[in-house]
Amino acid sequence: MERKGLILWLTGLSGSGKTTIAKGLECELKERCCLVELLDGDIIRTNLSKGLGFSREDRETNIRRIGFVANLLSRNGVMVIVAAISPYRTVRDEIRKTTTNFIEVYVNAPVTVCEARDVKGLYAMARAGKIKAFTGIDDPYEEPLNADIVCYTTQESVEESIAKVIAELERQHFISTKPKNKMID
Amino acid sequence: MERKGLILWLTGLSGSGKTTIAKGLECELKERCCLVELLDGDIIRTNLSKGLGFSREDRETNIRRIGFVANLLSRNGVMVIVAAISPYRTVRDEIRKTTTNFIEVYVNAPVTVCEARDVKGLYAMARAGKIKAFTGIDDPYEEPLNADIVCYTTQESVEESIAKVIAELERQHFISTKPKNKMID
Repeated sequence: MERKGLILWLTGLSGSGKTTIAKGLECELKERCCLVELLDGDIIRTNLSKGLGFSREDRETNIRRIGFVANLLSRNGVMVIVAAISPYRTVRDEIRKTTTNFIEVYVNAPVTVCEARDVKGLYAMARAGKIKAFTGIDDPYEEPLNADIVCYTTQESVEESIAKVIAELERQHFISTKPKNKMID
Repeated sequence: MERKGLILWLTGLSGSGKTTIAKGLECELKERCCLVELLDGDIIRTNLSKGLGFSREDRETNIRRIGFVANLLSRNGVMVIVAAISPYRTVRDEIRKTTTNFIEVYVNAPVTVCEARDVKGLYAMARAGKIKAFTGIDDPYEEPLNADIVCYTTQESVEESIAKVIAELERQHFISTKPKNKMID
């Protein structure tokens, strides 16, 4: 079994579609018998960053921790999918430089659309002042300038976004072009 | 290449010899072409637990974080060596239950010996009251009751302790009995 680790780092606003795409990618890669771990921002906050808030410093610490863990996994042949807002460009670029096979995926949706979706009700709370320093409302989101892949989730279906990422992984030979037969458990 | 992950959890007082044994094990396992990651308590504190102190709650959080990361790695076929005081029995037992292939190694040396060694000068600082809640001085160390392996570092050489752990890994078929030829890089 080929084992080439990487970090698929999905960045984007809350509600842009990161988790949905991440879960689809996880499923698709597992079907191809890859070792996959999904590090979702919310889960990481619970397990690694309880006590951290949403100040710039705390957010940076949280993102660096995700990067640290993602790197431990990717250098051991695991395909790591990170789904985290990760709003600051400098920290994302720092992680790119210090990790193995970092691929930045910008999950791009305008803040107006994300706010209209408001799946978790967080935008409403931010507008009501119940959440402070909410990315896109009163805290900045710094768009990637050179993302490896951009998924436009207002124009593409989830399947199209996933297919776009998979095609790039094939192009870069992280996975083979033709899906392997599913292994028996 | 066989890939069976595990967590070798080295617990013991500061100065008991955890890091020395851990580094020797790391080297030995890498020579056998295993995928190995050493999670040393001090390094983890820097990368995952900055801001945490040494209260019981903070120590438990730190240990749980190490367990979380160790489990992500071990379930992906990595041999993880943890070297951390991890003084509380309940937390170690909790991690044993929630992780893959947890092997507890008690690095056993009396506190009087560890204090006499005082490699990092921490015992002197604890005695002088400059460090509070120091394990073995004014914070408890709860010995394992059923450690899988006990290394008596006052009676065994480092090599003997390492050999004891390796023998147990062979016995449990995590590694093959005869060392494999070293792979060419």
